[in-house]
Amino acid sequence: MPNDEFMRAAIREAETGMRAGRGGPFGCVIVRRGEIVARGHNRVTSTNDPTAHAEVTAIRAACATLGTFQLPDCELYTSCEPCPMCLAAIYWARLPQVYYGNTRADAAAIGFDDDFIYRQIPLPPEQRAIPMASLLREEAQVAFREWTQLPAKIRY
Amino acid sequence: MPNDEFMRAAIREAETGMRAGRGGPFGCVIVRRGEIVARGHNRVTSTNDPTAHAEVTAIRAACATLGTFQLPDCELYTSCEPCPMCLAAIYWARLPQVYYGNTRADAAAIGFDDDFIYRQIPLPPEQRAIPMASLLREEAQVAFREWTQLPAKIRY
Repeated sequence: MPNDEFMRAAIREAETGMRAGRGGPFGCVIVRRGEIVARGHNRVTSTNDPTAHAEVTAIRAACATLGTFQLPDCELYTSCEPCPMCLAAIYWARLPQVYYGNTRADAAAIGFDDDFIYRQIPLPPEQRAIPMASLLREEAQVAFREWTQLPAKIRY
Repeated sequence: MPNDEFMRAAIREAETGMRAGRGGPFGCVIVRRGEIVARGHNRVTSTNDPTAHAEVTAIRAACATLGTFQLPDCELYTSCEPCPMCLAAIYWARLPQVYYGNTRADAAAIGFDDDFIYRQIPLPPEQRAIPMASLLREEAQVAFREWTQLPAKIRY
């Protein structure tokens, strides 16, 4: 059962990271047995790490906290549909459930156009093994709109 | 022009990591203007980080060293064909050229079977935008054979 509050926590992560100038408006939380065990937001530009997407950051934090390299008893809430890199990281981490707010198209609409990656690594939704559901998309879009209003943004 | 010595350096990274018990037999180097700027090997099990594949580790190190989040003037040499997560990370890092030693099938043959990920994120070779070529596969397989002889291995 998806929990709206966890998605709101992921959206808040997106806002926190964006407002602190750490990267794009993307946030993620990982939940285990009804509790958030890790949070993450995009830090690509501020840490010079192209792999520091919100989901990868949160997965790394959750694994560090729990002392494991697999998260089969956790769920991932992310403010935007995962890119292929993050989706593969989710598979490697053995996460069994994903909830996302904004869609890939929403991200493209604010300038995060990962079409070039999707063209390379096509991902038909019907082939996804992990249940993935959109949740609170309207609320998630608020952070995206705020991003478009920011005066200075590092593009990537 | 591929340089055999860089592939051998990637293979040595694989051996170093495997022999130190840090993870599977996978190594990578990133080259810029004829010089190695970063090295990485798999550290998944030893650092509890499912994203710490050799390529991701090397990309993060190269970006940290060069103070950038994109590597458009670098080449990546990896001892094994990149998995979908690493390939997407390579795309995000804007690396324009990849050389690999072992193939995906070679990895599956020693127990690193990422078929479940490939099934989810199909990657027809003809769709890859980045030139990718196999190099020194025979030499790269030596590290794989050594892995199969190790007495204690953490599976992942």
